[in-house]
Amino acid sequence: MAGGIKELTVDLGERSYPILIGPGLLARVGSLFAERGFAVKSPILLITDASVEDLYAGTVEQSLRDKGYTVARAVVPSGETSKSLTVFDDMITACLEAGLDRRSTVIALGGGVVGDLAGFVAATYMRGVRFVQIPTTILAHDSSVGGKVAVNHRLAKNIIGAFYQPEFVMYDLDTLLTLPIREVKAGLSEVVKHGLIWNADFVAWCDDNVDKLLALDPEALGYALYEGCKVKAIVVSRDERENDLRAILNLGHTIGHALEAVAGYGELLHGEAIAIGMVGSARLAGKFGYDPSIEAVTEALFRKIGSPVRIPGHLDVDQIMAAMQHDKKFMEGQMVFVVPTAIGAVEIRHDVPTAWVREIVEGLREGN
Amino acid sequence: MAGGIKELTVDLGERSYPILIGPGLLARVGSLFAERGFAVKSPILLITDASVEDLYAGTVEQSLRDKGYTVARAVVPSGETSKSLTVFDDMITACLEAGLDRRSTVIALGGGVVGDLAGFVAATYMRGVRFVQIPTTILAHDSSVGGKVAVNHRLAKNIIGAFYQPEFVMYDLDTLLTLPIREVKAGLSEVVKHGLIWNADFVAWCDDNVDKLLALDPEALGYALYEGCKVKAIVVSRDERENDLRAILNLGHTIGHALEAVAGYGELLHGEAIAIGMVGSARLAGKFGYDPSIEAVTEALFRKIGSPVRIPGHLDVDQIMAAMQHDKKFMEGQMVFVVPTAIGAVEIRHDVPTAWVREIVEGLREGN
Ligand SMILES: NC(=O)c1ccc[n+]([C@@H]2O[C@H](COP(=O)([O-])OP(=O)(O)OC[C@H]3O[C@@H](n4cnc5c(N)ncnc54)[C@H](O)[C@@H]3O)[C@@H](O)[C@H]2O)c1
Ligand SMILES: NC(=O)c1ccc[n+]([C@@H]2O[C@H](COP(=O)([O-])OP(=O)(O)OC[C@H]3O[C@@H](n4cnc5c(N)ncnc54)[C@H](O)[C@@H]3O)[C@@H](O)[C@H]2O)c1
Ligand SMILES: [Zn+2]
Ligand SMILES: [Zn+2]
Repeated sequence: MAGGIKELTVDLGERSYPILIGPGLLARVGSLFAERGFAVKSPILLITDASVEDLYAGTVEQSLRDKGYTVARAVVPSGETSKSLTVFDDMITACLEAGLDRRSTVIALGGGVVGDLAGFVAATYMRGVRFVQIPTTILAHDSSVGGKVAVNHRLAKNIIGAFYQPEFVMYDLDTLLTLPIREVKAGLSEVVKHGLIWNADFVAWCDDNVDKLLALDPEALGYALYEGCKVKAIVVSRDERENDLRAILNLGHTIGHALEAVAGYGELLHGEAIAIGMVGSARLAGKFGYDPSIEAVTEALFRKIGSPVRIPGHLDVDQIMAAMQHDKKFMEGQMVFVVPTAIGAVEIRHDVPTAWVREIVEGLREGN
Repeated sequence: MAGGIKELTVDLGERSYPILIGPGLLARVGSLFAERGFAVKSPILLITDASVEDLYAGTVEQSLRDKGYTVARAVVPSGETSKSLTVFDDMITACLEAGLDRRSTVIALGGGVVGDLAGFVAATYMRGVRFVQIPTTILAHDSSVGGKVAVNHRLAKNIIGAFYQPEFVMYDLDTLLTLPIREVKAGLSEVVKHGLIWNADFVAWCDDNVDKLLALDPEALGYALYEGCKVKAIVVSRDERENDLRAILNLGHTIGHALEAVAGYGELLHGEAIAIGMVGSARLAGKFGYDPSIEAVTEALFRKIGSPVRIPGHLDVDQIMAAMQHDKKFMEGQMVFVVPTAIGAVEIRHDVPTAWVREIVEGLREGN
């Protein structure tokens, strides 16, 4: 494609799909739908959140209407609390009221919250309709690729979901310019994660370019998101349903998810929680005898970005430990952890003593 | 297998699975799990309803515990109202409380309600865990085979769901002996449906054997359920995700689902509603110029069984028509109907005039 647009492919046989990354894409959604043969007769539902709606919903809808499509809009409150069964139910109502049929498309326009929610709607409405991701946060370079969709349950995050791939991901970098700085920082956690699990050179590049990234320099941002998506796409292509390899993407998430759950969804952003979690995993690497500099490098990079690297002091250690017991990464009663073996490489361990985890959680708690 | 047990296969490549039909199977669940390598370490959740629990849950659980499995039980109220997002949410809570992990199994023990609900739980809990169907109604010979799982929405039936195949179906004919006669009759609707769409000889056999079937004669019942499952298995093997052929299984369901929705889930049983729907489809065949005896034969067979063949007079025609507009079988604004072309053969029509449908609905309404 023209205009500085980069393309990647998630390679999944007949379910393969492209990721387009670049500026100015929102206004081209309609043309992309037409080129890819989306039926004009079947209505489309655009799911977005209250903040993103004001900024970008109009452009996307206009672009689709110009090509003859019918689009209805469903808006959810901004933030993690919209990933609930209650809001999911509202979205199904919206699908029915908009008259979506089996050939219809659900579009997610927003961050990971909207992407995960809308994806679960697309996966289950009429047992599955077409699905397109238009991510608008940095974090969503991760969530929009790979087909994991889900909502939360009172007792556990992302526990209700599916593997459901989009037909394409359209990542308009211009939308990132309106992101609050806290979201920028949180989103960079998953970018760094993709480096930490796969590519030491990219981690070094991130370290050299933190300032540009925080300033949303278009070239630096485009490069970082392309590299991040590339790691994600490779891993997902090799192991779509997380039978083995894909689990490495959970670096920092065992502790991170527990922190989110205990803090109450919303207090800690996902990216903030997993930044802390990645520091915890790096500390675990030390326990297993790997190079202690892994922890130092990891923590220094997150400090440079301005991400939290310690657990808020008011969170209760017992509650955090209990939340980990409900985590999907527990298997047959055992904890599963992704542990760095070097910068840019990880292994999956099933033999992490609970005592070590508790010690690390206690050690990372502010005030200790 | 020994002891008068028949076996069929749903042929779906690596997701192929067996259907076992015969007496005495409940007590053999544990052995079957062990033979098929289900992990003993991961807890199992048995989902059943209040009526079935009393009768059969103990036998199944004992059989599993004898082989070393850990089983928790979740009981839902009997009846269609349990196919709701609220009850689904309760089941996810039950999964979490029982400590189910990604290698765990959800077992559906009951009729189509429990099967559809538990299947949707298995499809979505942790993005999918193992699933086993133990049907205990005649109707469930249909619902337990083929992987369609779903819950209802206030505005439409089965609108939230997935295609999610079980790993096996274990159909213990002994359990049918406790079925209320109204459920026996309603269940026979789907058996007859499998004949009407595929096999004229089987329709004739049903007609000759109505008395034996209503009396739950083991041999007749075993034969009828085997034949019914066979049609279902063939159709699903050829078109798992209902791209084309599988739609023939919806004979009678466009009208039937609308009747269920308007009557309020629970008043008309599913099998009763589709019996009326199949009479409606047969009448549609006449409109299209096919042999008018199709309607006569269809209606006579359902009368012989004792199924309703007319729409209850208090149901409103406009509401029935509106409910059909929300039906999944509408595509791109057009009605899709399965229409018999002879006994044992159907076609899928996209060109049914709304006026004909209204006329038929009005004509079938009691008091007209
Ligand atoms: N499916 C996956 O593989 C996967 C991977 C990682 C994270 N996730 C999920 O992603 C979610 C977090 O995603 P997120 O960080 O994008 O959160 P988010 O979707 O809540 O977006 C963050 C905030 O930014 C606002 N926003 C979004 N785009 C904006 C824009 N362009 N300009 C201004 N404001 C904007 C939103 O309204 C929201 O308030 C979590 O629920 C997490 O579990 C999923
Ligand atoms: N998934 C599919 O492909 C598919 C196909 C057809 C129907 N269905 C669904 O199936 C449902 C209807 O199934 P159903 O007719 O089995 O209803 P059901 O599950 O409600 O069972 C009918 C009644 O019989 C009771 N019961 C069940 N087994 C019994 C036994 N052995 N002895 C005594 N009582 C027993 C139940 O408690 C219930 O009250 C509907 O929701 C329909 O949409 C699904
Ligand atoms: Zn994440
Ligand atoms: Zn049915």
